[in-house]
Order: sequence, then C-alpha cells, then structure tokens
Amino acid sequence: MAGLRTQVFKQVICVHHVYNGAKRFASRIGFIGLGNMGGSMAKNLIVKGHRLSVFDTNPQAVANLVEEGATALRNPADIAKNVECVITMLPNTSHVLETYQGENGIFQGIQAGTLLIDSSTIDPSVPKQLSSLAKNQGAVFLDAPVSGGVNAAKAGSLTFMVGGQADEFEPAKEILSCMGARAVYCGPSGSGQAAKLCNNMLLAISMIGTAEAMNLGIRLGLQPKLLAEIFNSSTGRCWSSEMYNPVPGTMENVPSANNYEGGFGTNLMVKDLGLAQDAATRTQTPVMLGSLAHQTYRIMSAHGFGNKDFSSVYKYIQEIEKSR
Amino acid sequence: MAGLRTQVFKQVICVHHVYNGAKRFASRIGFIGLGNMGGSMAKNLIVKGHRLSVFDTNPQAVANLVEEGATALRNPADIAKNVECVITMLPNTSHVLETYQGENGIFQGIQAGTLLIDSSTIDPSVPKQLSSLAKNQGAVFLDAPVSGGVNAAKAGSLTFMVGGQADEFEPAKEILSCMGARAVYCGPSGSGQAAKLCNNMLLAISMIGTAEAMNLGIRLGLQPKLLAEIFNSSTGRCWSSEMYNPVPGTMENVPSANNYEGGFGTNLMVKDLGLAQDAATRTQTPVMLGSLAHQTYRIMSAHGFGNKDFSSVYKYIQEIEKSR
Amino acid sequence: MAGLRTQVFKQVICVHHVYNGAKRFASRIGFIGLGNMGGSMAKNLIVKGHRLSVFDTNPQAVANLVEEGATALRNPADIAKNVECVITMLPNTSHVLETYQGENGIFQGIQAGTLLIDSSTIDPSVPKQLSSLAKNQGAVFLDAPVSGGVNAAKAGSLTFMVGGQADEFEPAKEILSCMGARAVYCGPSGSGQAAKLCNNMLLAISMIGTAEAMNLGIRLGLQPKLLAEIFNSSTGRCWSSEMYNPVPGTMENVPSANNYEGGFGTNLMVKDLGLAQDAATRTQTPVMLGSLAHQTYRIMSAHGFGNKDFSSVYKYIQEIEKSR
Amino acid sequence: MAGLRTQVFKQVICVHHVYNGAKRFASRIGFIGLGNMGGSMAKNLIVKGHRLSVFDTNPQAVANLVEEGATALRNPADIAKNVECVITMLPNTSHVLETYQGENGIFQGIQAGTLLIDSSTIDPSVPKQLSSLAKNQGAVFLDAPVSGGVNAAKAGSLTFMVGGQADEFEPAKEILSCMGARAVYCGPSGSGQAAKLCNNMLLAISMIGTAEAMNLGIRLGLQPKLLAEIFNSSTGRCWSSEMYNPVPGTMENVPSANNYEGGFGTNLMVKDLGLAQDAATRTQTPVMLGSLAHQTYRIMSAHGFGNKDFSSVYKYIQEIEKSR
Repeated sequence: MAGLRTQVFKQVICVHHVYNGAKRFASRIGFIGLGNMGGSMAKNLIVKGHRLSVFDTNPQAVANLVEEGATALRNPADIAKNVECVITMLPNTSHVLETYQGENGIFQGIQAGTLLIDSSTIDPSVPKQLSSLAKNQGAVFLDAPVSGGVNAAKAGSLTFMVGGQADEFEPAKEILSCMGARAVYCGPSGSGQAAKLCNNMLLAISMIGTAEAMNLGIRLGLQPKLLAEIFNSSTGRCWSSEMYNPVPGTMENVPSANNYEGGFGTNLMVKDLGLAQDAATRTQTPVMLGSLAHQTYRIMSAHGFGNKDFSSVYKYIQEIEKSR
Repeated sequence: MAGLRTQVFKQVICVHHVYNGAKRFASRIGFIGLGNMGGSMAKNLIVKGHRLSVFDTNPQAVANLVEEGATALRNPADIAKNVECVITMLPNTSHVLETYQGENGIFQGIQAGTLLIDSSTIDPSVPKQLSSLAKNQGAVFLDAPVSGGVNAAKAGSLTFMVGGQADEFEPAKEILSCMGARAVYCGPSGSGQAAKLCNNMLLAISMIGTAEAMNLGIRLGLQPKLLAEIFNSSTGRCWSSEMYNPVPGTMENVPSANNYEGGFGTNLMVKDLGLAQDAATRTQTPVMLGSLAHQTYRIMSAHGFGNKDFSSVYKYIQEIEKSR
Repeated sequence: MAGLRTQVFKQVICVHHVYNGAKRFASRIGFIGLGNMGGSMAKNLIVKGHRLSVFDTNPQAVANLVEEGATALRNPADIAKNVECVITMLPNTSHVLETYQGENGIFQGIQAGTLLIDSSTIDPSVPKQLSSLAKNQGAVFLDAPVSGGVNAAKAGSLTFMVGGQADEFEPAKEILSCMGARAVYCGPSGSGQAAKLCNNMLLAISMIGTAEAMNLGIRLGLQPKLLAEIFNSSTGRCWSSEMYNPVPGTMENVPSANNYEGGFGTNLMVKDLGLAQDAATRTQTPVMLGSLAHQTYRIMSAHGFGNKDFSSVYKYIQEIEKSR
Repeated sequence: MAGLRTQVFKQVICVHHVYNGAKRFASRIGFIGLGNMGGSMAKNLIVKGHRLSVFDTNPQAVANLVEEGATALRNPADIAKNVECVITMLPNTSHVLETYQGENGIFQGIQAGTLLIDSSTIDPSVPKQLSSLAKNQGAVFLDAPVSGGVNAAKAGSLTFMVGGQADEFEPAKEILSCMGARAVYCGPSGSGQAAKLCNNMLLAISMIGTAEAMNLGIRLGLQPKLLAEIFNSSTGRCWSSEMYNPVPGTMENVPSANNYEGGFGTNLMVKDLGLAQDAATRTQTPVMLGSLAHQTYRIMSAHGFGNKDFSSVYKYIQEIEKSR
C-alpha cells in the first residue's frame, strides 16, 4: 500500500518535473467542493496534467469542471474509490465531517494508500480525529488550509499551511505546488489549521488597529498617505498598513481603492475569528483583542459590511455623523 | 530676525558638512531636560561640535553634561537668552508648559529668530498653542518627538517626527541629524506629536495581538519560532512579530530574550496611549482596540510590569496557573 | 457675609415651608443656561416663588423665561451682581470656564456671600479650581450635577449629586429641593461630578450588558419578557433590565417602547463617558469595560444613533443582515 | 408509561404535601454527581423523604451519601434501572454526554416513564439532543441548571431554570422544590441553560462594571460606602453593587468582606462565560462586553484569582504599584 502511494507520488513528481514539456504521467485526483476557491484550484490541477474526478452538490459547479476535462462522480465515496488522492475544499467544519463520515462519504469508499488533503478552514481539533480514522483504513490525512483569496486560487499562488505526519509533507507538496506558490509544514495533525487561525486573528487585529490609527491621525489633521509611510518606516508597520491599507487613496489595487469590493469578505473573517475564539475557549487562552476584533467584525456584518472586504472596518469606524 | 536665524543655520549646515573634518563653526544650542533620553541627545550634539547650554532640575544630570563640555545655566529663561536654538526633552505636557510659560520660562528669555524644538511626547494640541506664542515673539516652534528608545538616543539613530511650518523643517533637520538617523516632516504644528501617538497606538495593538496569536498557537501545539516565521511570511506580519517578537526563544537581542529588561517600558506605553486616548476623546474618534490596549497596559502596570518592556504583555497573558 | 447668606437661606426655607400657602419671601436667584434642562429647572424655581434673573446666548430661551416672570440680564457678571445665588446649567467644561472666568463672567460681578451652584456635567477636576477662586471672593461654589433627564427636570424630580464644603450642603439643599426630589452629599469639591461620572459609566456598561444578554437569549429562543423577569429576580438584575429595558415589547413608558425617542441621548452618554475616560486616564485607573462602552457608544453615534436614547444599543447590536 | 410517571408524581406530591407530618410515600430518585453542589442537593432529597440511589466516580462522595441513607449503585445504567427520576449534577458538557450516552450510561438502563433532570451547567444545544433521545425511550428530559452556590445548595434555597416540555414542568417542580426555593419555567429544551448563561454573562459584566466604577470613584476621592449608596439609589444600581459589592468594607457577609473566599469562583465564571461565548459564536450574536468579561476573568485566572470569588475582579484592577 505504501508502495502504491509512493508510486503515485513518483508519477506526480514526474508530472511536475516535466511540466514544461509533454505530459506523460498523471495522477488521479478527486476534488470535492468546487466553489469560488475549489473550482479554481481544481482547474489548476487539470492544467498541470492531473486527471480529476469531481463532486459538488451544485450541478453547475460540476458542469464547469467537466467542461475542463474532469469526470463527475455521484458522491464522495465514489470519488474515494477511484483516486489516489482526495482534496476537499468546503465551507465549514460540519460540511467536512459530513463529506468524510456521512453516508456515501469518503471513508466509505477509501482505499489503503490514499492521500487525503483537506484545504477547508475548520476547527483545528477535527483533523486529529479524521487523521486517526484515515490511519485505521491505511490512508493519510493532512490539513492544508490556504491563505490568499480567490485571485490567488485562480493564479495558483496560494500558500498552504500543512499539518500531519512530517514524512507525508514532501509528497503532498508536489500536488500542492500545482495549486499554490508555497507550502509550509506546521507540525502534527491540526497544525495547519492552528497556524491559519492564529495568523488570521493577528491579521484581524492589525487591520482594525491600522484603521483606528489611520482614522485618528486623519482626524488630527495628518495626510493619510504620509501617515501610512510613517507607520511603514517605523514600529507601527504591519501587513495591513503596508500591503493592504484600508484608507481609500493611500494605495492602488487593494479593496480600499475599489469601494471594498473583492478581497476577503468580513463574513469570512467572522468565521475564522469564531474558530479562533472556540480554540481559545477550549484551551483557556486569553485573547482580549482577538475577542474584541471578532465581535467588531460581527457587528460590522450586522450593519451591512458582511460581503465587503474586511478592510472596510475603516469605513465602519469613520464618523459619518457629527456628534453633539 | 529671519536673517539671524538663516545665518545660524548656515553655520549649522557648515558644521554638518565638514563634520568629518575640522569643526570651524558651531551653533549655540540650549538643551533642557537631561534624563536618559535628553542626556544622550545632548552629548551627541556636543560630539557633533555644537556649544551647549543646559538646564535640568536634577543637579547630577547637569553635572554629567558639564563634564562633557556644556555650560550650566540657572533656568530656561537664561538658556533662551543665550542660544539660537532650544531643545526640550521633558517627561510630559505639564513639564513642557511650565518650562515654556512658567516663571523664568523660555518665553521670558527668548530672542527673535530662535528655533524652539520640543522632542518631548505631549498632547498634540499643545504645540499649536506654543507655536503661536513663539510666533508672537518672532521665534519658531517645532514639535519633534522621537521614536527609538534610550539605545537609539545614545547611538544617535533616533527618528524625529516633525510638525510645524514646512519651510522651517530643512534648517531644523540639520540639527536633528546630529541626534538621529532620520527626520520626517509630518505637517503643521502638532503633526509630529499626532504621528507619534498614532504610530505608538498601532504598535501597542500589534504587540498585544502578536502576543495573543503567538500564545494561542503555542497552546495549540505549534513551535514558537515556526509560528513567527509563518506570520512573517504571511498577512499576520508586523513589526512586533518580525523585529521584536515578545516570545522568549524566538529572537536574540530583543527584550524578550532578556527577561523583558531594557526596551520601551510599559509605563511609557501607558503614557503614550493615554495621550492617544485623550486625542481620540477630543476629536470623537472611535478607537476600540486602542482603548482596550491602553487599559491592558494599565492593568499590567498594576501587576508589576510597569518597568518591564511593553512586550512583556506576552508573559502577562500566559497561563501561569491551571484553571479548573 | 456669612450672615447675609444665612439670612437668604432662612427666607428660602420660609418659602419652602409655606409653599402651599401665600408666598411671602423669595430669594433672588440667577440662572445661566436655559436649554432643555436649565429652562425647566428655572421655571420650577419661579413656580416655587423665587425671583429669577436669567442669561443665555439664545434669545428665544431667554424670552421663554421672561414670559414666566424672569428678568433678563446682559451677561453672567450682571447676574452675579444682582443675586444671592447663581445656578449654571451649561453644555460642557469650556462653557462653564468661560461663564465663570471669561470677560463679563460671574467672577467679575460676584458679591461676597454668594452661593454658586453648577449643575452642568463637567470634568471633576474643575470644581476644585472654581471653588478656590470663589473662596477668594468670599463666595461658595458647589458642584451639583443631576441625574434624571428632561422629564425629571420638568417634573422637578431630579437627583442632585453635590460636592463642596459639607456645611454648605444643607442651605443649598433648600434651593435644590425646588428643582429636584433628592440631593445627595458626595464629599469635597468635585465629588458630585465624580459620583455622576462613575454612576453613568456603570449605567452605560450595564445597559450594553443587558442589551447583549437579552439579544443572546432571544437568539437562543427565549421570550424577551420572560428573560427580563429571570434577570430581575436573579443576579443579572440591574436598573437597565428592570426599569429601562432596551428590548421593545418588554416594558411600557420607556424609550424602547417608543422607537428610542426621548430619554437620554447616545451623544450625551458619549460625552459623560469621555469625561469618565479623562478622569481614568488622569488617575491611571483601569476601566476596561468603561472604555469599551465609551467606544461602542461613539461608534453608534457615527452610525445614526446619536440622538436616539442610549438604550438603542440593543437595536444597534441586533443582527439586521444574515451573515454567510 | 405516562400513567406510571403520573403515579410517581402523585406520590411526590403527597410527600411534599405531608412533609411536616409523617412520611408515607417516597419516590425512588437516582442522583449522579455528588460534588459540593450535588452532594448537598442529594442530602436535601433524603431529608425530604425520598429514597436515593447514587453514583459518583469518587468513592468518598458516595460513602458520604450512603451514610445519610442512600444506596450506592455501580453505574448510571444501574441507577436508571432502579428509579423513576434521575438527577445529574456534573462538571461539564462532556461528563453529561458520557453519563447519558456512554457505556453503562443512563440511556442503557432507562425505563419508559422516567423523568431525567440535568442540573449541570452545559452547552444549551445539548439538552435538545438528549431530550430527543429520551423521548425515543419513552422518557422525559429537562434541563434545570441552578443559580445560587454551595450555600444555597446546602440550605435548599437554589433557583432552578428549567427547559423542556411545558407540561412536565409542574411534576418536576415538586422534586425541585425539595432542593430549591424557586423554579422558573424558561421554555423548550435548552431554555434553562440559555437563561442561565445569559444571566451569568450579564452578572459578569455588571460585576466588572461595578468594580471599575467603584475603583474610579475611590481614586477620585469618594467614600466607597457612600458611592455604593449613590449607585443603589440611582441608575447605576445592579445586583453586584447592591447585594454583593466587590469593595471590602462596603458590606458584610459577602466574599469581599472575607478576602474573596467562598462565593462563586472565578474559574466557574470562566466556564459559564465560555459556554456563553460558544453560544454567541454559534448564533452569530455580537457580545462585545461579554467577550471582554470572559477574557478578563480568564486572565484573572492566570494571575492567581481562579479559586477566589469572581468579585475579586475589584482587587485585580486596583493599582497595586505606582506607575511612573
């Protein structure tokens, strides 16, 4: 069985190595969850020469991939029966559990030696459990959530944060490299999810902090662009101030330059912060600013910013009415 | 009068230009406030060839500078009578107001054409007022608070954030360059203070955010160094995670590697955040995370972290006792 | 001088005692600041038999009181020259300072023996200063901010929180009793303001807490009225849950039953919380929830709730849009 | 089956009615979870004439009850086989799930017609699930968490917040009345837990608010007792200020009068706030102050206040060291 998988990965490696030339070998990969993210990731796998079997509850999403050359199968179990590697990209924890453990789920069709990669963002305690169930069936489970949004998915420039057995990371990297620019090994099962949640919690905090500091400076009479430069050459520097400034007019090609369209939606940030909050509650870890950031994005969501980029927190805190 | 000042600055410029050669001209500069920061800044001015008159209420601090070649005078008014430029580096707003407006204060001795530079960190509404009083006496007032702590003051590598009339910035820059590596023009009177407060508020938020995210990740089983690398190559990146990581063992030569000794004390951060809070209250600007960061550092101060570096917030939030 | 004032208060006492019968004696009182609150308070003094001299920068406000029998004077100094007691009811600290210390201010017309009562809500550090200036002129200054809004002002049912010399409290109480149902002596100068700010900070926190807890319960399927009853018979009980519930349908005759019209405006709460925040900053007192409450009301103000009753925080936090 | 249960409750009612006279009938009740709370509750049931079968993993706790007349059984299943009513009082959600659904759990021994009462404080989404499983076996499940701590458990003066089918409330009330002074029907399954969590979240917020407002007032020079009185006769009034004031010296017979010993431990509050936070995350309900209260108690727990009464938040926020 290990032999089978090794063989498969040798093929993958070959595909990868000869990518600029003719495709000779191609691995059979199953892809479940063909939404905005998953759809683009699946296409990139086809482009890189893999044979894909796909499943989604949305027929149109499936049709789009079939047009690109994928084979549609009836359910996750059927997918699992026909491939050496299954990738899942689903909206949340319960979808992932259902897809793996439900009726006609992956675990009902899985073969020994299969590599299971879940790129959904879910509760970091779940991968350990799925990993152990996979092991019972001779398979391997890795959590590999992504950073970088829809555009990075299209461009194949995602970053994968990977959790699981260290010796499974290299083979998986070959496949991940077809969909992303980078894969970081984070530690045992669940570590990929943990790293993603921590990163996004820090991002959420820094973004609100940047919005507050920019807003305060502007209210005190400073020019926004100059203020951003001061931060960026000083101790206030952060990704949000430097690469993704939330104040319109300070940068081009970021959501704040485009009425906060595109980018990473507030509702998605609420979801990730909810998972971080759950993890903090479970591990009794104090996250004062993390909690406040979570609640702030949640209230923004309630005030019409749910589908705007999360940097719209700047707009949200601007004074739009004079107080007495 | 403008002529006098221009002349003075020509001299300064000369000093500056010939710094690597012989000192020919040197401007007369008054320095008030010779604490940890001010003392080192004053020494650097002497080293760069300026003649210094100094004042401080602490006789030892004065004696130290006299040893370096400075002349001690009896009060701020006397300083002002004898120099072309006065630099103040004082603990807070009320010290600055007293030093300028009090009995035997600067305004009682000031000559037309004098350049007044206040490098203290104070309420950003005060410089406008002092600037206007200075103007009435034919003098010029600039606010020029610094970033970079005691070590940067010693090394002459401070950053100055300067507020005041734009055409006074270039001449002042010559003097500031003797004490720092960089001077940024921020806008009209008070803008230097405003920029500093906004930067430090963002710094305070990012630092707590970094501490929370690192702590959560560690509690979830991630290796601290790896987690910091993930942040720094991703959207969680900020100065606190990259240059000044609060978790012992992740970096060398930062306060977290040295039991949080040295660096920028929690009490100083409390002071700056208090000024930011006041500015936010006055301008009715919402600063949710800024307020919470302020209160968090204040409570830390109450629990023995007041004289530790502000990155000790990591230690503060670590679980030191098992909850039931 | 003390004799004069004592005599005046004896008259007041008489007026008070014979209120249901004929008015025989009446003290001369000056009233400055005839807005929604001050106008009603002044009227009540007239009704109770006092002779009023009034001043306001708004001519219509003055005209209204003249119609009720008051005499209009040109400025605070003129008021002070003609009365035994001056009451001020002004929007904020700077108005109070100007009215007392400005050109033609109270201190320019004041007579020895005058009783000065400031019912404005202002920075609690200011009364001490005004009290000391008053003392220099042989007068007495009390801070006496009110609780209870416009309706209580009309009905004469305000509560006064009084700071100043203890032995001046009883005489002042006689006058205050014409405008309110209750006066509480809080301690030396500034204590009235301090008590008010602390009370309102606690009120602001409890109100948001009540709104959050009611909202969470309702989202979990509980009936609002039942939930309020559970709180009120248990440890969650507070004035906001019991007397002023923010959830529409739980109570009658409160702002939540009337689209949050009337009551105590969010902008006024922002002002009081700003003063509490300033006091906390000055005294280095940690107020975590107090700060967050302040910022929350400030953001509400920015989102159109500024002139709604402060209990509209319930409406503000309700989910009005489905998150993904 | 319904008949059997009705009959049982008639007996209970009899017991209750004739309590002051001779005991004639007594119901058979199972009690699982004999800790500080459960042990006292079980004793009260025995005192009121019920025959108890008990189970706990701690042999000493079981021995104590056997001494009072209870019968020890080997596991929850055995308990369920032998009684008409099972009461559980366990530390957390996972203990409850294990006790009901685990090997030799209640559901393996349960008879039709049994009344199941869970008085643990757990995730409010769990009772619905247990209720439905109970129904499948012809039994009835009620959630009935308590308010009032160890002393109320001893004194039999607890308050029960009950969720489940309305028509089961009255019979259950008879049994609950043996252990408590009051039972409130809150709505369908899970409502008891929901009500408790919302109440405790509001309590946590009010307590911290009271501590902050008292502390600020004291720092501004007010007398603690006087300040408490002002709150309690005004809009700041809440259970924490009135019945359980956190400032030593303001009240007798409360934890603050006894070095914060006894009462409701910070760690227990952390647990309840964690459940509230989870419920808020699941229902996407904004709880800004609720989250901050949760994190504050969690940090207190990390700083040695975990086993102190939750009103020790006052001590926690007091300035114990002078800031610079």
